[in-house]
Amino acid sequence: MQQIHISNLKDYVGQEITLQGWLFNKRSSGKVRFVILRDGTGYLQCVFFKGNVSEEIFDSADKLGQESSIEITGKVKEEPRAIGGFELDSTDLKIIQASQEYPITPKDHGIEFLLDNRHLWLRSKKQVAIMQVRHRIIKAIRDYFDERDYTLMDPPILTPNAVEGTSTLFETPYFDLGTAYLTQSGQLYAEAGAMALGKVYTFGPTFRAEKSKTRRHLTEFWMVEPEVAFADLDDNMDIAEEFLEYIVQTVLEEKDEELKILERDTSMLQNVKRPMPRITYDEAVELLHKNGVEFEWGKDLGGTDETLVSNQFDKPVMVHRYPAEVKAFYMKRDPENNNLALALDVLAPEGYGEIIGGSQREDNLDELLDRIKEHNLPQDTFEWYLDLRRYGTVPHSGFGLGLERTVSWICGLDHLREAIPFPRMIYRNTP
Amino acid sequence: MQQIHISNLKDYVGQEITLQGWLFNKRSSGKVRFVILRDGTGYLQCVFFKGNVSEEIFDSADKLGQESSIEITGKVKEEPRAIGGFELDSTDLKIIQASQEYPITPKDHGIEFLLDNRHLWLRSKKQVAIMQVRHRIIKAIRDYFDERDYTLMDPPILTPNAVEGTSTLFETPYFDLGTAYLTQSGQLYAEAGAMALGKVYTFGPTFRAEKSKTRRHLTEFWMVEPEVAFADLDDNMDIAEEFLEYIVQTVLEEKDEELKILERDTSMLQNVKRPMPRITYDEAVELLHKNGVEFEWGKDLGGTDETLVSNQFDKPVMVHRYPAEVKAFYMKRDPENNNLALALDVLAPEGYGEIIGGSQREDNLDELLDRIKEHNLPQDTFEWYLDLRRYGTVPHSGFGLGLERTVSWICGLDHLREAIPFPRMIYRNTP
Repeated sequence: MQQIHISNLKDYVGQEITLQGWLFNKRSSGKVRFVILRDGTGYLQCVFFKGNVSEEIFDSADKLGQESSIEITGKVKEEPRAIGGFELDSTDLKIIQASQEYPITPKDHGIEFLLDNRHLWLRSKKQVAIMQVRHRIIKAIRDYFDERDYTLMDPPILTPNAVEGTSTLFETPYFDLGTAYLTQSGQLYAEAGAMALGKVYTFGPTFRAEKSKTRRHLTEFWMVEPEVAFADLDDNMDIAEEFLEYIVQTVLEEKDEELKILERDTSMLQNVKRPMPRITYDEAVELLHKNGVEFEWGKDLGGTDETLVSNQFDKPVMVHRYPAEVKAFYMKRDPENNNLALALDVLAPEGYGEIIGGSQREDNLDELLDRIKEHNLPQDTFEWYLDLRRYGTVPHSGFGLGLERTVSWICGLDHLREAIPFPRMIYRNTP
Repeated sequence: MQQIHISNLKDYVGQEITLQGWLFNKRSSGKVRFVILRDGTGYLQCVFFKGNVSEEIFDSADKLGQESSIEITGKVKEEPRAIGGFELDSTDLKIIQASQEYPITPKDHGIEFLLDNRHLWLRSKKQVAIMQVRHRIIKAIRDYFDERDYTLMDPPILTPNAVEGTSTLFETPYFDLGTAYLTQSGQLYAEAGAMALGKVYTFGPTFRAEKSKTRRHLTEFWMVEPEVAFADLDDNMDIAEEFLEYIVQTVLEEKDEELKILERDTSMLQNVKRPMPRITYDEAVELLHKNGVEFEWGKDLGGTDETLVSNQFDKPVMVHRYPAEVKAFYMKRDPENNNLALALDVLAPEGYGEIIGGSQREDNLDELLDRIKEHNLPQDTFEWYLDLRRYGTVPHSGFGLGLERTVSWICGLDHLREAIPFPRMIYRNTP
């Protein structure tokens, strides 16, 4: 069980080793055959010199199809000109399975074909890079909170509550208890957690049965949601900007290779450092007007509005204090202006839109009861949530960061569908 | 935003600080009032001497109800006899909300009442301890794989595939695409991931619409599933035992305080070290017979059988090579005996049953096609999965570890329902 991987080759320079993986690419040049081996951790050029290996092996290095599973033995050499910086002076090649007519060739394929073959498309160089960046982003998210004494609290997926409106809910029959919904957000549960554990975060899949077909929507996506007792809106913004800086700078440091494979221009990402600009909704509206957009005060910012606002800055911009009308029932009103909610959105640069949405929560029982009535929500479903305001209520705040939007932004992707291993959209729930 | 928490008091000895939290308990003794403050990170005895504080504060320290939200100022003193080793010589107390008639009192409550009030029950000392152990287990799981170069790969929750049988599926209408099911396991997707990335793990919620009411079942539970290309059954067992040792020893080292709160006798947990016993199913059946159990070769081990087998050992025991009949379609047959599957179950000691289930996977296309037919599964739904055997198939193995069973075992709980923040069972999907 001492399997050697391409990512660890530096420990084996000068040694004869055996590697297992798949044929990624190959080429011939006179009396030499080159096989690029991939094993999921990297790529390695394996060189076969005629005469050094049997005639049979030399031939098969030429004939093997893409994605054939193989085992190659040889000596590790440093070779700065080769991919990854090493080369294998090969002495043996065993075929595990000769793959024929692998569907995804180096030529261009349509997106529907690639999505139909997502289980194979994931092997492509760019997709591997995206998945490795995604993994590193997830680890950075968890490290950030774990290092700061937050407790992870997994909220339920099956829930009787509709948090973000009832029109976009997936539902399932639940034994004799009627209908259960797939969660749209773990926030309400995170609030219960914050009262028990002080600082918590949830991190799990959330669902929106959105009929939207835009590149910014998935029906199933992952969201991380910190919730902090005794934090107000300013604290919330402090956490959000430190959090974003931590994620982006960590990925820039540690996933440089992958971002190069993705041909990501990282100059704007380098800027993601504190402090980040904070503007009110009012100021955002002013910016829109200044730029000739007819925008009516009181509406929510749309995608193109967000892009225009964020284009005024060279790093993520926080927009706070939105009209209460367009925001969720649980947001606290601004004590200075009852028409505003203590809401916070963070807009990513380069047109990637809202990546964080959050607020200070309404911690007053009577106010919250009023909101529930105003929003025509069923009070009995929220009795447990109201209990949090009956027994030791405290000011508290939190936000949600959409994982796939963050992956998409950092990787520079056109569409969320490549930011998750198996995307789910209105017209796709396979493979 | 420099909030001070009880967990960091050692940095503030001799200083006057302000802490925010909830009244956990209180008592009076002549001219002294004691308030135990909890803030989610720990507990602190705050002492109020008559004369040191105003009459009003002295009185309110006596009258405040459990779970009132408060802010206390005072000087930090080391006090080995006090809970947590510190005490606060208090000079001020501010009431954020005086809580009256908190439903969960120190007296005994029935389990249904506690589950109805799960959002408040989570604040109890034992529940806080369980949540902190759960968090540490999750972190250990991720660290184990991250440190060993696995890539996290989140499988879809909404899926067209039924992996573990169709009778226990939750389903939801999915736009114009018919029905989608809630995943029972991310394994099939993890296999696609292993072919792309070499070593992967999934970690997310999984669902079984089990009508079972036993203490070992939840309808929604978290599962971690590593999947490794080029690993066989022996490698799989090597990984499983190293993984278990890592998790248990990490929690023992770092969550000692919490395990004490839970009154967990950790002597059996100390034993969870490599090597762990490995016995075949045949040997397990022999053990049952030796202990007077009438057990027919070919059946799956039931809960009481598992307990009897695991009681023969002082650490987790791995049972491998089960009758193929009782195992899933994707498991590879033992080349030495076609009636056996290269399956692996790990049984926890102390009656906690199966915590790991896994296998080497069938990597041969024709064999897998036969299995799909034998199990009456719809081949077209599995075409993508079959592709993994068409294009560069390789031997590979993996397993799943049930998170709540592991939390339950390590914490010494009677029932899975306390191992997850908001449990879902056949008769419960609230709060």
